[in-house]
Amino acid sequence: MLVKEIKELRSLIKSWKSEGLSVGFVPTMGALHEGHESLIKKAALENDKVVVSVFVNPTQFGPNEDYDSYPRDINKDLNLCMTAGAVAIFNPDPSEMYFENKSTSISVSNLTSVLCGAKRPGHFDGVCLVVSKLFNIVTPDKAYFGQKDAQQVAVLKKMVRDLNIDVEIVTCPIIREEDGLAKSSRNTYLLKTERKAALVLSRSLNIAKELLKNGERNANKIKEIMKDEIIKEPLAKIDYIEIVDGDSLQKIENIEKSILVPIAVYIGKTRLIDNFIFEV
Amino acid sequence: MLVKEIKELRSLIKSWKSEGLSVGFVPTMGALHEGHESLIKKAALENDKVVVSVFVNPTQFGPNEDYDSYPRDINKDLNLCMTAGAVAIFNPDPSEMYFENKSTSISVSNLTSVLCGAKRPGHFDGVCLVVSKLFNIVTPDKAYFGQKDAQQVAVLKKMVRDLNIDVEIVTCPIIREEDGLAKSSRNTYLLKTERKAALVLSRSLNIAKELLKNGERNANKIKEIMKDEIIKEPLAKIDYIEIVDGDSLQKIENIEKSILVPIAVYIGKTRLIDNFIFEV
Repeated sequence: MLVKEIKELRSLIKSWKSEGLSVGFVPTMGALHEGHESLIKKAALENDKVVVSVFVNPTQFGPNEDYDSYPRDINKDLNLCMTAGAVAIFNPDPSEMYFENKSTSISVSNLTSVLCGAKRPGHFDGVCLVVSKLFNIVTPDKAYFGQKDAQQVAVLKKMVRDLNIDVEIVTCPIIREEDGLAKSSRNTYLLKTERKAALVLSRSLNIAKELLKNGERNANKIKEIMKDEIIKEPLAKIDYIEIVDGDSLQKIENIEKSILVPIAVYIGKTRLIDNFIFEV
Repeated sequence: MLVKEIKELRSLIKSWKSEGLSVGFVPTMGALHEGHESLIKKAALENDKVVVSVFVNPTQFGPNEDYDSYPRDINKDLNLCMTAGAVAIFNPDPSEMYFENKSTSISVSNLTSVLCGAKRPGHFDGVCLVVSKLFNIVTPDKAYFGQKDAQQVAVLKKMVRDLNIDVEIVTCPIIREEDGLAKSSRNTYLLKTERKAALVLSRSLNIAKELLKNGERNANKIKEIMKDEIIKEPLAKIDYIEIVDGDSLQKIENIEKSILVPIAVYIGKTRLIDNFIFEV
């Protein structure tokens, strides 16, 4: 069922709750792929009803980012959601979500100025705003996010904790193409040669994973080797290669506990991200 | 019933909600007086269950403000709440409400830099943070606030709207002492001579009200007359006298629609506020 209005969605969810049914929620920006599908399927397994939001959120795009060109195909999305087990797709117009004189902002300090946040000022504030609004509208028991956006997960977990939002954040593994490229709605931007070049992300992460498995614990050494691998690819331009604590996102030099290894690399004009978690 | 832990309160409220009962909520900092009592009584009339929070919120006090000396008397508060019709008093320790490494902040721009916000930087961010946390814990149908804190009401209404928080904000009239002084927990700070001097607030507001009733529409003229009245009182020091739009808190010069007339005046070291709404 396609729902455009907040009022309609609230009334639907209240009717479910009054019957004691649990609600799983998958917030998305649409252009759904197998990554999103895996979230919806997991949500359908763990909840009585699943709501998927499809909303390209203007407040999380910077002025020179791809808000206008971000891929949109609501009919395809609707079909994927229903097949994967969702009951309602919430697809509001921007005017339904934001008043013109909106004044309220939410910030999670420390976690949002590093990694992607360093290059995308205001991005995570926009994410926090829209997700907190959606949580207040949907009031889910559990909400599902992909590990691909590792920083987003860390930020939202902190926000949920700090604001006592009564929802469980469930993180699901990165889904990859057969050749290793992490699924992303932005992969559709890649030209044919770029698509091949984009494999440098997962390849460099695999090299790091091997080094860690073989006992390497010097973060700088690992990052250098990843960098050497990526700069071999002429279409690639490194934004960042980091080794951080997965909760605080603070840099780690000597690896003594579980870490997150996130990278962001431009392939041509397309900025791609990928990561893995390594448990020591 | 006195509740100290979030977990216990949530479970109580969930049991009420599962029976379809409505929940009214009165957030307070304790030191309850007849103003709070009127909120609790109204909440008890309009809801099946009433929760009152008694929490002196550290994040809304500035470094040189009266957090430590703010009056606290939980037994007296508990008694007043129960008599007025509340079922649960939520009185958490600060450590129950805030993690040491809390990172999330909420801001309502435009509305929080004027009036009290100009002299109390960060105050309304602290109010927004604690109220949004309490709303997420209590999930009330309606929440009750006193008109005395007019700016707080305007800020919270904007926050609730912008974040799609599913709660109705109910504003209740200012309760006054017989001689006109607005009830406030901070009135206990006043020495005997100051207590008498404090009447200058309501007196100047009454003068403004008379002027408005008699057709005066020049805001500056009204503010000048109020100022002249207040400076006659040697113990009084004006913080602000304003005439603003009650929603946006923007200054109004020619009064053509409903207005808010808020004032803040130091009486000795005690900062008191008062206001009235005038419907044109």
